[in-house]
Amino acid sequence: MADQGNFSHIDDKGSAKMVNVGDKSVTKRVAVAEGVVRVGERAAAMLTERGKIAKGNVLDTARIAGIMAVKKTPGLIPMCHPIIIDNVEINAEIVEETVRILVRVEAEGKTGVEMEAMTAAAVTALTVYDMCKSVEKGIIIESVRLLRKSGGKSGLWERDE
Amino acid sequence: MADQGNFSHIDDKGSAKMVNVGDKSVTKRVAVAEGVVRVGERAAAMLTERGKIAKGNVLDTARIAGIMAVKKTPGLIPMCHPIIIDNVEINAEIVEETVRILVRVEAEGKTGVEMEAMTAAAVTALTVYDMCKSVEKGIIIESVRLLRKSGGKSGLWERDE
Amino acid sequence: MADQGNFSHIDDKGSAKMVNVGDKSVTKRVAVAEGVVRVGERAAAMLTERGKIAKGNVLDTARIAGIMAVKKTPGLIPMCHPIIIDNVEINAEIVEETVRILVRVEAEGKTGVEMEAMTAAAVTALTVYDMCKSVEKGIIIESVRLLRKSGGKSGLWERDE
Amino acid sequence: MADQGNFSHIDDKGSAKMVNVGDKSVTKRVAVAEGVVRVGERAAAMLTERGKIAKGNVLDTARIAGIMAVKKTPGLIPMCHPIIIDNVEINAEIVEETVRILVRVEAEGKTGVEMEAMTAAAVTALTVYDMCKSVEKGIIIESVRLLRKSGGKSGLWERDE
Amino acid sequence: MADQGNFSHIDDKGSAKMVNVGDKSVTKRVAVAEGVVRVGERAAAMLTERGKIAKGNVLDTARIAGIMAVKKTPGLIPMCHPIIIDNVEINAEIVEETVRILVRVEAEGKTGVEMEAMTAAAVTALTVYDMCKSVEKGIIIESVRLLRKSGGKSGLWERDE
Amino acid sequence: MADQGNFSHIDDKGSAKMVNVGDKSVTKRVAVAEGVVRVGERAAAMLTERGKIAKGNVLDTARIAGIMAVKKTPGLIPMCHPIIIDNVEINAEIVEETVRILVRVEAEGKTGVEMEAMTAAAVTALTVYDMCKSVEKGIIIESVRLLRKSGGKSGLWERDE
Repeated sequence: MADQGNFSHIDDKGSAKMVNVGDKSVTKRVAVAEGVVRVGERAAAMLTERGKIAKGNVLDTARIAGIMAVKKTPGLIPMCHPIIIDNVEINAEIVEETVRILVRVEAEGKTGVEMEAMTAAAVTALTVYDMCKSVEKGIIIESVRLLRKSGGKSGLWERDE
Repeated sequence: MADQGNFSHIDDKGSAKMVNVGDKSVTKRVAVAEGVVRVGERAAAMLTERGKIAKGNVLDTARIAGIMAVKKTPGLIPMCHPIIIDNVEINAEIVEETVRILVRVEAEGKTGVEMEAMTAAAVTALTVYDMCKSVEKGIIIESVRLLRKSGGKSGLWERDE
Repeated sequence: MADQGNFSHIDDKGSAKMVNVGDKSVTKRVAVAEGVVRVGERAAAMLTERGKIAKGNVLDTARIAGIMAVKKTPGLIPMCHPIIIDNVEINAEIVEETVRILVRVEAEGKTGVEMEAMTAAAVTALTVYDMCKSVEKGIIIESVRLLRKSGGKSGLWERDE
Repeated sequence: MADQGNFSHIDDKGSAKMVNVGDKSVTKRVAVAEGVVRVGERAAAMLTERGKIAKGNVLDTARIAGIMAVKKTPGLIPMCHPIIIDNVEINAEIVEETVRILVRVEAEGKTGVEMEAMTAAAVTALTVYDMCKSVEKGIIIESVRLLRKSGGKSGLWERDE
Repeated sequence: MADQGNFSHIDDKGSAKMVNVGDKSVTKRVAVAEGVVRVGERAAAMLTERGKIAKGNVLDTARIAGIMAVKKTPGLIPMCHPIIIDNVEINAEIVEETVRILVRVEAEGKTGVEMEAMTAAAVTALTVYDMCKSVEKGIIIESVRLLRKSGGKSGLWERDE
Repeated sequence: MADQGNFSHIDDKGSAKMVNVGDKSVTKRVAVAEGVVRVGERAAAMLTERGKIAKGNVLDTARIAGIMAVKKTPGLIPMCHPIIIDNVEINAEIVEETVRILVRVEAEGKTGVEMEAMTAAAVTALTVYDMCKSVEKGIIIESVRLLRKSGGKSGLWERDE
């Protein structure tokens, strides 16, 4: 992890603050985040066995919750700016004993959309947990992380794997 | 992970549904969830060095976001019932290169509060990420999981470590 | 339509007001509402032809929006009381050129749940419209109405057909 | 009803999705929707007899709920984009045994405002129902429909009567 | 002002916290709050001259905003518990150059409703300001204060005048 | 207080209405509002004595609530337009027996941000009240008022002291 700067959300007196984006330019913003939910062998098998419809209703309910969560992000994360979203894409699929969630958010604005992508990944993952918890209580959200972001002064950032 | 039952949120036709809690009894409900955010060496050091106030403002902003998220849970998770909350406690501390979040939610109602605890842990973790991302972009939410729940017909559940 | 009473939401001076439910007793409340969306021949055919999955994703997205709308009802309808919901069931099916929506809401409280059922039927219908409007702009929500309510002092009410 | 296209809210795999408006141009958007609530002879007479003030407080409360609902539309309709609204006009009047609601929404953006107009018409109608249901339980929302929309690539659309 | 206790919303470590109401008993809770908005001579005269309807639409819009704000209080005030409201009454009248707002909130619960009454008084006052600011920019909300509360362990409290 | 115009939120028929900002130009908008909370001698002393941390957690919780309230303003104030915010700064400090709150909101848009600044000042003040009410029940919000606004056709306005 590289040295990148100071706490932009903490002011001189040590208090939390919003970042002033008044002088930033409006650019195309994209962020991609990933969430991984370890649902366990049994839930993964049940979702797979019950075929496209049952699986669909677990994963699609979670995807819808994630899309709606993008629009709620500035209401959830205190210092996050409101932004007008152009697009949200959420993919959710079963990979072995996990549900892998990939979220892509696009906007044109003065501020990035990584909080929107991260929040959507987290809420999609929480909804997978909610939809499967009667089958398996031990489910773990084992990762929510940003994979990529572009737009704005800082340009492209991609996670090293 | 043990065999526990069927998808309570999927009906006969494979559609998502709420669980009918009309016949459940009102009992004391408690849920404890944990979130872990890997903020990295530099952000952890900066939080620690800047002493109680800077750390406080990152972690306390996150805690407040988490407490408020408990009240928004039924609006975020589609099949989640509304419930009147008696108490929320969120602890957040720096342990090596991570922020460890512990959430406890208590209520008296017909339905459990694990979604409230899990959602609060996730939103606290997302806010830690937001407050520290100018210092370290690579931050990962590396776990959000239920540790314990009690109340209701199913009684006490505790995670095996 | 029978004579039933006065405007309970208008006070002596002619101003809008909430109904005081402080002295009402907590009883089991049920309300059933219906919505009908005329989607037209082509959209109905396309939904049917594309089989369970495409149809599912139009109707299930609408159902999820309806379930979530129940929880938002007191925020939408100014004089509506908040109430803790026990259950929401929404059925949506294609009947000739229409989508027929049936909503059942159950709660235990001092106030009825007809606004929750009506609002859910309306929002489910609006979402069907949104999901199908690229196929057919002329779609009409042709009815949202209460079919039945029970609980509270006024007891059972059923619509005469 | 004419052939117009495919489901823009369903992707290749049959899942619900937002429409990507990233490449759409910002244009002036207008949508006009209508709602009709059959309140019945008695409620209509009572509203008329009690003169401007009582009628005002039923209809104006409903209008206010409708204006506020425009701002909540992206939170209610899962695949709906957020948009910055320039204007909302809601007219509500008693015509025989009905309340006729006319909603006009204007914005400048990449996406249309028909969902905002339709949602406002529906919520205004639901609030008329709520305000009058103590007088007449049998009230029916008998129509919510788009009358006109303009702006964007598809240009002007008007309902044939 | 009398000595009354310690900060119930600050824990041992100095962090903000919710109050645990798990062991409190459910009692009837009432709170009365007052707001005063100095609208100035001209706006007061215009409201009075234009008679009941114009006045009504300024004050009734504000009253409706206040009633709806009661339901949003736990979403606005971080450490405030959700509570099921039985009744809200808001009176707003012109007294010389001011609008005097009186709010009464009633509930049955484990926690008081003073925050609901105070928040409703503040939002009613803010809406009076919004509705009149084109007539007089200098408008001041000159007081929002609790007049009385009853219920719970601490019993009746009334402001000394 | 000077003569400034007519009720822009009341239409010809005397009904509440939004202002049509469709033809207004997008300009830089700034508004500064002030709130004063009389917390009393004892609470002020306790906040001061307990040093930066306890004071911080009362005042910073209030500041966070205020920042979040900016984003909720169009949902609280019925005729208020949504607007994309560039910056919010809230300062809160203890001055004798009061907490003095200063809010500055900046945006680029067709509509002013005075309602956002006023609402944030009010919600910050309400949260100070909530955080201190266990120490002193008699706390009064003794002023919420606009100090300055700029941007748009009407240009700069400043309060005469």
